[in-house]
Amino acid sequence: MERSPLLTSRTKVKRIPKRGFYDRESVVSILDSAFLCHVGFVVDGQPYVIPTSFGRIGDRIYIHGSAASRMLRNLAEGISVCVTVTHLDGLVLARSAFNHSMNYRSAVILGQAELVVDPQEKLEALEAISEQIIPGRWADCRLPSSKELKATSVLRLPISEASAKIRTGPPVDDDDDMSSEFWAGVIPLGSRAGKAVPDPLLDPKIKIPLYVEEYSL
Amino acid sequence: MERSPLLTSRTKVKRIPKRGFYDRESVVSILDSAFLCHVGFVVDGQPYVIPTSFGRIGDRIYIHGSAASRMLRNLAEGISVCVTVTHLDGLVLARSAFNHSMNYRSAVILGQAELVVDPQEKLEALEAISEQIIPGRWADCRLPSSKELKATSVLRLPISEASAKIRTGPPVDDDDDMSSEFWAGVIPLGSRAGKAVPDPLLDPKIKIPLYVEEYSL
Repeated sequence: MERSPLLTSRTKVKRIPKRGFYDRESVVSILDSAFLCHVGFVVDGQPYVIPTSFGRIGDRIYIHGSAASRMLRNLAEGISVCVTVTHLDGLVLARSAFNHSMNYRSAVILGQAELVVDPQEKLEALEAISEQIIPGRWADCRLPSSKELKATSVLRLPISEASAKIRTGPPVDDDDDMSSEFWAGVIPLGSRAGKAVPDPLLDPKIKIPLYVEEYSL
Repeated sequence: MERSPLLTSRTKVKRIPKRGFYDRESVVSILDSAFLCHVGFVVDGQPYVIPTSFGRIGDRIYIHGSAASRMLRNLAEGISVCVTVTHLDGLVLARSAFNHSMNYRSAVILGQAELVVDPQEKLEALEAISEQIIPGRWADCRLPSSKELKATSVLRLPISEASAKIRTGPPVDDDDDMSSEFWAGVIPLGSRAGKAVPDPLLDPKIKIPLYVEEYSL
């Protein structure tokens, strides 16, 4: 396989190497079909893993949070982070317990998060996060005031050291198990969006926007 | 609030404290409605966050993997870990961009993972992981051989330092925004299981078991 710039000894998939991908397209396609990531960081030797939303602009991802939050304060100091995005696509039922698996697509990005100080980049990052979650919403809500922007921290992480890990397809059993009587196959898994529930305080004259009504995952 | 044994300065929810819960029931109910977690650990100062399945027996959770995997080898050395389980329940659309949120239930467990050496505990842990993913399967597949058990590492993490963080309900906007024309409400999110796909190599005489056909999330 051609050496990719995203591949380092730290992002190399060591376990079942054929599942590892290091091209930008593989990583970006996993990122772009998600908006939730798990961010790992270390404080006093203890790792913390926190779910949060993210957005992507080009070769950077952005996460945001309260300027007062423990995670953001720690990350803004430039410590090492790991951002992981996972899609669970199916349960893989093999004939043997040992060969059970899951179909999934996951991306891991390593690096140093940096605090975004430029107000224009900060606003663009917040728009990117919002549009990653629900396209169309940014143009249809009250945008942040300068006071609200000050209360929000945005962090930038370059997509420069990363990997994707992907499993697809049916179970793979040992030859000796192929004649067993156990059912084998895949149960597909996915996410779904339900029917939107208006805020009880919403003026009933306000109609549901199309991008909300037709929202899907 | 009564002091809970799961609460420490490290698990205390600092940002929006009313969303933090430290009772065993809150944590366990979040764990028991999931089978995927994100495990955080540190190697040479770099955090890694890896998705993996888990199982619970009493006040311990178990994860497993190849004895050869980087994660398992590192964790087996007794380093600190963070196991995070996240359910995303909804997008919360407020009138202001700033007050947008998500409904979620997440649990965070901190501690030191320990390698399970007792063969009986190891087998029970693997059964617990399997049953957490798909109840009924353990009794309907070829169980691990002693060679397969040797190739599998199982780690135990006590649920002794943990927290749950939960948000539910409609958006909360500033008073000044309540008369705006923007739609506000919640888009519920969840997981779904599709129709099971038999292995192309499956003997067509083998019927789909009920626990597969009726699998739901």
